[in-house]
Amino acid sequence: MSNETKLTYLALGGAGEIGMNMYLYGYGPVGEQRFILVDCGVTFPNMDTTPGVDLIMADPSFIAERADRLEGIFITHGHEDHVGALGFLLPRLQAPVFSRKFTGLIAGQKLERSGLDPAQINVMAPWPETVELGPFKVGFLPVSHSIPEASGLVIDTPGGRIVHTGDFKLDPDPLVGEPYDPALLDQIAEGGVKALVCDSTNIFSPHLGRSEAEIRPDIEALMREAKGMVVATTFASNIARLKTLAQAAHDNGRSVVVLGRAMSTMLQNGFSSGVLNDFPPIVDVRDAGDVPRQNLFVLATGSQGERRAASAQLAGNGYQGFSMKAGDTFLFSSKTIPGNEVSVARILNQLSELDVTVIDDDDGRYHVSGHANRPDLEEVHRRLKPANVIPMHGEHRHLRAHTALAADRGLHAVVAPNGAVVDLTGEEARVIDNVETGRVYLDGTVLIGALDGIVRERIRMAQRGHVVVSIMLESDGTPIGAPWVDVAGLPDPEGQETLSGALEARIGDALDLASGSVLDDDEALERVLVKTVQTEASGLIRKKPVVAVLINRFDD
Amino acid sequence: MSNETKLTYLALGGAGEIGMNMYLYGYGPVGEQRFILVDCGVTFPNMDTTPGVDLIMADPSFIAERADRLEGIFITHGHEDHVGALGFLLPRLQAPVFSRKFTGLIAGQKLERSGLDPAQINVMAPWPETVELGPFKVGFLPVSHSIPEASGLVIDTPGGRIVHTGDFKLDPDPLVGEPYDPALLDQIAEGGVKALVCDSTNIFSPHLGRSEAEIRPDIEALMREAKGMVVATTFASNIARLKTLAQAAHDNGRSVVVLGRAMSTMLQNGFSSGVLNDFPPIVDVRDAGDVPRQNLFVLATGSQGERRAASAQLAGNGYQGFSMKAGDTFLFSSKTIPGNEVSVARILNQLSELDVTVIDDDDGRYHVSGHANRPDLEEVHRRLKPANVIPMHGEHRHLRAHTALAADRGLHAVVAPNGAVVDLTGEEARVIDNVETGRVYLDGTVLIGALDGIVRERIRMAQRGHVVVSIMLESDGTPIGAPWVDVAGLPDPEGQETLSGALEARIGDALDLASGSVLDDDEALERVLVKTVQTEASGLIRKKPVVAVLINRFDD
Repeated sequence: MSNETKLTYLALGGAGEIGMNMYLYGYGPVGEQRFILVDCGVTFPNMDTTPGVDLIMADPSFIAERADRLEGIFITHGHEDHVGALGFLLPRLQAPVFSRKFTGLIAGQKLERSGLDPAQINVMAPWPETVELGPFKVGFLPVSHSIPEASGLVIDTPGGRIVHTGDFKLDPDPLVGEPYDPALLDQIAEGGVKALVCDSTNIFSPHLGRSEAEIRPDIEALMREAKGMVVATTFASNIARLKTLAQAAHDNGRSVVVLGRAMSTMLQNGFSSGVLNDFPPIVDVRDAGDVPRQNLFVLATGSQGERRAASAQLAGNGYQGFSMKAGDTFLFSSKTIPGNEVSVARILNQLSELDVTVIDDDDGRYHVSGHANRPDLEEVHRRLKPANVIPMHGEHRHLRAHTALAADRGLHAVVAPNGAVVDLTGEEARVIDNVETGRVYLDGTVLIGALDGIVRERIRMAQRGHVVVSIMLESDGTPIGAPWVDVAGLPDPEGQETLSGALEARIGDALDLASGSVLDDDEALERVLVKTVQTEASGLIRKKPVVAVLINRFDD
Repeated sequence: MSNETKLTYLALGGAGEIGMNMYLYGYGPVGEQRFILVDCGVTFPNMDTTPGVDLIMADPSFIAERADRLEGIFITHGHEDHVGALGFLLPRLQAPVFSRKFTGLIAGQKLERSGLDPAQINVMAPWPETVELGPFKVGFLPVSHSIPEASGLVIDTPGGRIVHTGDFKLDPDPLVGEPYDPALLDQIAEGGVKALVCDSTNIFSPHLGRSEAEIRPDIEALMREAKGMVVATTFASNIARLKTLAQAAHDNGRSVVVLGRAMSTMLQNGFSSGVLNDFPPIVDVRDAGDVPRQNLFVLATGSQGERRAASAQLAGNGYQGFSMKAGDTFLFSSKTIPGNEVSVARILNQLSELDVTVIDDDDGRYHVSGHANRPDLEEVHRRLKPANVIPMHGEHRHLRAHTALAADRGLHAVVAPNGAVVDLTGEEARVIDNVETGRVYLDGTVLIGALDGIVRERIRMAQRGHVVVSIMLESDGTPIGAPWVDVAGLPDPEGQETLSGALEARIGDALDLASGSVLDDDEALERVLVKTVQTEASGLIRKKPVVAVLINRFDD
C-alpha cells in the first residue's frame, strides 16, 4: 500500500463467525490512519475446542499496537457478543468509549467487574446527535433488536458515509424502544451511502421478519389457560419480552417472581435507564411461598440450558426454594443457539420426568428473532442505496449469501472475513490486504492466545489421558531403584495387570537397554521414556497418553 | 415379586435416549424367566461428557448375569444404534443371534472386527417365517426405514403377542425393500396384540410421513441443472437414497464415484444380499481423473460432519485426489442429528470459502426421515389395536408424548425408561420394578463403566489442567533438595513468574511448615501438597488443577 489517504474497514472479529464482534474503521494516509473501533464482544467456549476456558474474544493486537491512533470505541448494544470483552481489552486499547444510555449501564458493569471506572463511558443520545473524533463524525442510529436501545452507527468521514447496522431487525412495534422508521433510513441515505456494513445472521430466513408485538396474544392465552405455576425463560436482556411475559401473567392474576442474577440486573438496568416502565410489581422470592401455585409466574435465566442458571436448576432439584411439579408449565420463549441443543434437551427431558408441560418455540408462537430476515435486508439495501455492501456478523456462508443478495439487486458487495482489509476509498470496495487476526481466551484470570498450546494440551489429556514417569539416577547415569508411574484418566488393560505396573516394567526394561549417552542426557532420556510409555500404552489399551517425565539425578 | 409366571419388558438402553437400543423380553416364573434380547446398539461419544471414548453401549450386566436363560438375540436392522455393540457384548451374552439377510451381513462384519465368527448369525426370512426359542415364537415383520430389510418383530408368547416395531416408517414406495402393507398389520392384529412396543423418535413431527419416492424429482432436477461436479452425502446405509442419487446422476450423464469406506461396504452388502440391483456402474476412484468435472458425481460419507470422513476432507484439502472447486455443488441429502450442528456448519463454511454451491435439507426437498411421524404412529395404533402401548426409542419427552398420543385414543400406555420392568401379564401393563442399568464405554480397547471415574478424571484435566509435584525425603522425613513441579494445560500468571516456579516456592514453604507426623505419612503429606497446589493456583490464575504427587523416600 502506498501512503495515499484511505477509508478502510477491517473485521477483527464477527466476520466469519457469529459472535465476538469487533470492527475497525480507518481513515487517513496509510501508516498514519486514525481509527474507530465498533463493538468489543465475546463468544463462548465449548468442550470440543476450548475446555476450561471462560470466555473467548477477538485478538485486539492489530489495534492495540496502534492504540495511539484509536480515537474511540463505539458499543452498538449491550449483548455479550458486542460488549462482553470490553473490561478485559480496554486496558490495551486506552480510548474513550461511547454508547447509548442502557448499553452504557451494561458496559459500565463490565468495566466495574474488571476493576475499571464505569464513569469513563460516554453516553450519547441517538441520531441526530453525533460526536466528532478526528476524521470521524459518528451518531447512534436507533434500530430494533432483542435488547433496548440497540443502534446502528452513521459514520461520516471525508471519504463518505458508512452505515454500520449493528444487530438489527425492522420492527414496526417493538414494544420497548423506537419502532422501525423508514423515513429515517431515507434521510440517512440522502447524499449517498458509501458503504452499508450489515448484519447477516438471518440471511437464510426467507420470510419477512415478525414483530415483537405479534407473539403477545399467544403469550396472553398461555397465561390465561395454564393451570399450575408458569415458568418462562428467555434472554435476560430481552426487556420487551420480559415485559410482555410479566404483564400477561399479571393480567391473569399471577404474581411475578424473577430468578437468576442476570435477569434481575437487566430489569434494574431497564428501570434506571428509563427504557422500562409500567412493569408489573415483582414479588420478592422470600414472599413467593405465600402465593398459591396457580398464581405464580417465574421469569428464569438459562434459556440456553446453562447448567448453573435458574432454568436448569428448576428442572433439577430446584432453585431458591422453587421446584417444578406435575401440572406446571415451562415456556421457552427463546431460540436454541446452535451448539446448545443437547443442553436444552437435557432440561426438556428433566421437565418431562416431572410431568411438567413444556412449550418450546418449534412453531414460533412464543418467540421472534431479533435479526433482519432476507426480505428485511433487501428493504434496507433498497432504502439506503449504498455504493457497497459489506456483510458482517455471520459465518462465511452467511456473508457469502448476503453478498449474493446484494449482487442480485445490482449492488457491489464484498465478502470480507476477519482480517480482510477493505478499501472503501474508490468507487468499488475491494480487499487490499489481509492482516493477522485471532482469538484470545480468558482462562481463569489469565488472557492466553488461542495458539499458545495450553488449551490444546488440555484437549489432549481429555482424549488420551496422562502418565507421569519418575526415575532416579546416580550422577554416573546408573538408575536408582525402580521407576515410578502414575496414570490419570486411563483404564487398566483387560486382565489382571495394572497399566501403571505394566508401564513401570517396560520402563525398567528400557532403562536396562539404554546406552550411557542416553542415560547422561536428560532430553534424550525423556524422549526414550515418552516413546516407551506411548508405545506400550498403545499396545495394551490403544491409547497414546500425554506423558510427563521427571528425572532426578543425585550428585552425592 | 412372587414367583408367578410373568411376561415382562425391560429396556436396558434406548428408552430415555435416542440410540443404544437394547430391549429385553422375559417369560416364565419370576426368577426362572427365559429371555430374548432385541438389538444391541451403540451411541456416540462427545467431548462434553465422554472425551476420548470410542463408543458407548448399554451396560448388559442384567442379562449377562442371566445369560444361561437368554434364548436368543434379535437384530431388527443394521444401524449402529441397533447392532454396533454386538461384537463387544456377545462374548458376555453367549446366545444365538437372529436377523434378516442384509442385517446379518452388517452384524457379521461387527463380529469379524471383534475376532468372532460371523457365521454364527442365523439369517431368517421375513414373516410368516418364525423361530421358536423356549416360550417365544419370533418372526421378522418387514417395515420401511432408511436402511434395507428393517424389521419389526412379532413375538408370540403364552402370555400373548407383542409387536416390537424397531425403527420404522410407513412408506408406500420405499424404492428399496417392501412397501407399507396395511393388510399385513391387520393380519398381525387378528387375535389381539398384548403390547405394541413402538418407535417414538418422530412423535413431535405433526405431519404425515413422506415417502422416499417423493424426493426423487428434486434430486433429478438438481443433477440435471448442476454445472460442475456434484457431491452428495447421506448415511452410508441408506441404500435407497444412494440408488436414487446415483441413478439420477447417471441418467444425466454423470459417472458415479464412491468415496469413503463405509459407503463402499454398504453398497457391497446391498449387492451381495440381493436388496440392491440396477445400480448404475461405479467408476473406480483412480479412473475418475479422466472424466470431465461436469460429468462427475461423488457419493461421500460424513453427512454428520465427522472430521475424518470424506465430506469433511473434501471440504478441506481434498480426499483421494478429489477436491471441491468454485461452481461445484455439494448436497446434504441428510438431516443433521442434534449435537452435530457445529461440525456440519464447519463444512458448510469451508465449502462457502471455496465458492461451492451448498444445498442442505432446510426445506425437506432432498431428504425424508426414516421414522414414523405422529399421524403414522396413530395409524399403527389404530390398525394393531394393542391392549398396551410401550413407547421406546426416544428421550423421556418423546416417550411421554407418545404415551399421551396413545391415551388420546383410549389405549393404555406406559412410560418405561431404561431399567423399568414392565409387567405385561395382566390386562394393563404396569411398572413393577426398577433394575440398575447404565452405560459401558469402549475406551481404546477396554470396556469401562461409565461410573468408573476414568473419563471423569479426563474431563477434570481438560477443564482444570494437571500439575505433577515430586519431592524427595530422607527416611527421617527431612526433605532433600527442592520440590519439582511440572504443569500441563495451565497458563503462567500475568507478570513474570512461571506457575511451576510459584508452586515450587509455595510447596517448599509448606514442607518447611509441615509437622514431623505429616512428613512421615505419605497420605497426609499428599493431602497437604494437593491442597497447597490447588490453593496457590486458584489464587494466582483461578484454576484448581488435578494434582499428582510423587513422594520418594530414601532409606540409605
